[in-house]
Amino acid sequence: MQTHFSLKAALVFNTAFPVEAVTVVEGLVNEANTTLFRRGVPAGVADEEVGRITAWDVKENELTLEIESGPYTRAHDALFRFRKQIAPKLGRFRLGLRGIEVGAFHISMRGEFPAGMRLPALPFINSYRLEGGLLELDLRMEAAELEDRVPDRLVHLVEEKCQAAEYGGKAEHWELCFESKKRTGRYSGDPTEEMIRRGWIKHGLSRGQWIHGPQSTQLFRAFEQIVFEEIIGPLGFSEMIFPKLVPWEVWKHSGHAKGVYPEIYYVCTPKTRDPAYWEEVADWFKVTGEVPVDLIRSKIDGPIGGLTYAQCPSFWPFVQGETLANGSLPIKIFDRSGTSHRYESGGIHGIERVDEFHRIEILWLGTVEQTCEIADSLHQAYHRVFEDILELEWRAAKVTPWFMAQEGMIGAETDSCGCGARVGTTDYEALLPYNKSWLEFQNVSINGDKYPKGFSVKIQSGKDCWSGCSGIGLERWTAAFLAQKGFDLSGWPDRVAAIVGEPKELFKFL
Amino acid sequence: MQTHFSLKAALVFNTAFPVEAVTVVEGLVNEANTTLFRRGVPAGVADEEVGRITAWDVKENELTLEIESGPYTRAHDALFRFRKQIAPKLGRFRLGLRGIEVGAFHISMRGEFPAGMRLPALPFINSYRLEGGLLELDLRMEAAELEDRVPDRLVHLVEEKCQAAEYGGKAEHWELCFESKKRTGRYSGDPTEEMIRRGWIKHGLSRGQWIHGPQSTQLFRAFEQIVFEEIIGPLGFSEMIFPKLVPWEVWKHSGHAKGVYPEIYYVCTPKTRDPAYWEEVADWFKVTGEVPVDLIRSKIDGPIGGLTYAQCPSFWPFVQGETLANGSLPIKIFDRSGTSHRYESGGIHGIERVDEFHRIEILWLGTVEQTCEIADSLHQAYHRVFEDILELEWRAAKVTPWFMAQEGMIGAETDSCGCGARVGTTDYEALLPYNKSWLEFQNVSINGDKYPKGFSVKIQSGKDCWSGCSGIGLERWTAAFLAQKGFDLSGWPDRVAAIVGEPKELFKFL
Repeated sequence: MQTHFSLKAALVFNTAFPVEAVTVVEGLVNEANTTLFRRGVPAGVADEEVGRITAWDVKENELTLEIESGPYTRAHDALFRFRKQIAPKLGRFRLGLRGIEVGAFHISMRGEFPAGMRLPALPFINSYRLEGGLLELDLRMEAAELEDRVPDRLVHLVEEKCQAAEYGGKAEHWELCFESKKRTGRYSGDPTEEMIRRGWIKHGLSRGQWIHGPQSTQLFRAFEQIVFEEIIGPLGFSEMIFPKLVPWEVWKHSGHAKGVYPEIYYVCTPKTRDPAYWEEVADWFKVTGEVPVDLIRSKIDGPIGGLTYAQCPSFWPFVQGETLANGSLPIKIFDRSGTSHRYESGGIHGIERVDEFHRIEILWLGTVEQTCEIADSLHQAYHRVFEDILELEWRAAKVTPWFMAQEGMIGAETDSCGCGARVGTTDYEALLPYNKSWLEFQNVSINGDKYPKGFSVKIQSGKDCWSGCSGIGLERWTAAFLAQKGFDLSGWPDRVAAIVGEPKELFKFL
Repeated sequence: MQTHFSLKAALVFNTAFPVEAVTVVEGLVNEANTTLFRRGVPAGVADEEVGRITAWDVKENELTLEIESGPYTRAHDALFRFRKQIAPKLGRFRLGLRGIEVGAFHISMRGEFPAGMRLPALPFINSYRLEGGLLELDLRMEAAELEDRVPDRLVHLVEEKCQAAEYGGKAEHWELCFESKKRTGRYSGDPTEEMIRRGWIKHGLSRGQWIHGPQSTQLFRAFEQIVFEEIIGPLGFSEMIFPKLVPWEVWKHSGHAKGVYPEIYYVCTPKTRDPAYWEEVADWFKVTGEVPVDLIRSKIDGPIGGLTYAQCPSFWPFVQGETLANGSLPIKIFDRSGTSHRYESGGIHGIERVDEFHRIEILWLGTVEQTCEIADSLHQAYHRVFEDILELEWRAAKVTPWFMAQEGMIGAETDSCGCGARVGTTDYEALLPYNKSWLEFQNVSINGDKYPKGFSVKIQSGKDCWSGCSGIGLERWTAAFLAQKGFDLSGWPDRVAAIVGEPKELFKFL
């Protein structure tokens, strides 16, 4: 992609330029174009690729500049570099810089763009035009926005859209790591239908939501116990409690704010707790028996964020901005304190695809080596549980992490120790005999430095801080297990049957 | 309160009235005024208190009626009673009733009204005027609304506002049942401040929300274990999993839709899951680093409901509309599967007053006697735990149930077996030495037939179905315990110290 920046700006001073100062400016402009703007630019880069002042003028107390650049020392960077250089030099003429007024700012990009590419209606985009492989952006930005690198993020967004379009048609990268022997054949029913029939679960009144009776809950807690005894306990993970309402501030740091919107349950707050303010809403319901949703909508603020989507981002403010002592690493923790929610597609789904679900989230952080070692020991523990305890027909596959695709972080990660290839997710899948599909019921992710960087977490030694997470979905373990083993406890693996016990039949309806 | 109803309506038939039919109408009107409308009205009630047709006329195919009433056989009830009587009688003239057109409808109420009383802007209230103890309502309703008893609910709302104003100034009824001996004096610090200092907890990024480190979580889980061993296990409660996102439909049946609005965290859903629809939101964040809240607001539906406030309403759809076999009663269950959320007042509060909290909710239902017996055994078990295990300085008090005040169900409940006086809540309070206040850290409520009625749950025997609930707030147990016992484990009751164990100090920050 060929990118060109063109910027007009005025440096506004407290007083008019004396004639001698104008000569100084001339010298500084020449020095900037030949030396200052060349700093850090690889040798051999053509002049027109690098930031340069192409015109300048002094009128009264204003120094106007026209700056052009390609991708090196971009026009807005050149502006601030020049400001830093010129301000002290003009001090001796008692010229004090008061501010910067940004005039016209154009960016053009030449390359292959996806058909119908759109840019968001950002207040600083006057207009843009895409024609014949040329994107022309007419911008109106404040100096603060230039300094905040908004133009760079805008260019990055366009590049990302082009990359995403290129990758878009291709399936997620999927590579088989392990496949168990065939173990199904005993049962081929749909476990959700059978659980409903037996009164183990009943639809909640919200979409993709179930109320679990004692029998279903026995299974959840049995799986939890197995996870405690076989994984969390032996590997030394400690329980914490992560918040379940996630404000934007968390998702801004975790990166989820880059793309999670279509699947979020959003949370809004009352504009006030004053009962008088809400009286008409309550009155409306009392008289009509209906809740006045539009009226309520006018009385709430936000959204302030949403319900838990991924479970681990809410942990990170606990260590945000901190440097962890070497001796306290690796940190190994887990959370099982509440629900996660995803706005899934409508229609009829079983408990393997729900909007509200229950997950034990395992999280660890430390050096690169520690992070990878823990992932390895988790893989071994899961392998043992699925092979020897649950006796499932299952497989494991390395997949391109969802967030890389979602956030445009496409491309190979590299790092100093060669562990870059380890960044990514391994999905555990179980066969659902009733519809012959593979259900992703478990994962282990090495997230590299994504979270430590996002939340500014460092290690005392100065080494890279990495983290990993692994989500154990209780609905999905249940769906996988029942789909393969059925409902006859005598056919279940002994240990599972012993822990679950006879289903408690509390409710008898006429 | 003196209430008067005045209604004009036309019964519209398929064809014009023959002369003979008019004579029949005259007879039916007389019969209605003297007999039909008097049915069910106590003897001795004055004529002007009872519904009566004060004028009628036949034009073409319409029979117009003017009906007046006091509180007996209210004008709209009289209208439908008359319709039921007249329709078959006019059938022999081939007059078929096509519909009812409601004309003017006035309700006047005379009594003592609270100053500044307002009615909601309901579409069927043309106008209303309150002057000198007289409220005059000018209404425009459809026949369906009359039949749906909207006028009655409107009158009830006004009566309720008058009652609420009368009770409003008075404090909640509070009656001491038990007070332990004085046990505090060892520690007088603010437990939240000390937990923060020790790194046990850290503020979450949303209001009134904490991230609990391993040490705080150890306390939560220790209390949970004590509840299991001493209360839930011995009394035979079984675990279920109640949903945590509560749609309006649940709160409509539970009665919370009558007044819970000021403290709710509301939940909204995406208008669509189409990624293209959300692209501009993601792009906006990617370029500016800010989440465009107003843009998101325009792209979401709802609110569809809110986050869990009380924990038990979400259970009830599991038994909604069912008749429970005698042998399955009483049902004893509990839920501890997620968070509850209340929009509390702002400002600085400790962990005893949070927006996001963790509660074990115990719920039971059965006959009146069963419900009261279980409440009694819970009281005994809690008493033992607070006296002998936690060794708290605590007290218990009977209070007027919050929902009775909130929903206008003020007044004594009665029932056939004399248990009515049992309906209500007992609060358990612990002394917080650091600010010398009593903290409500626990409750037991007998809710009478509120939930079974709201969700249409019946008992095979035909006896009244009652229910109760008891919320165990883990934040509040922790706040009460630490405020009284402090942080030196050697001073803690042995069993608590043994179960909690040494605090796990995982995190060491530089």
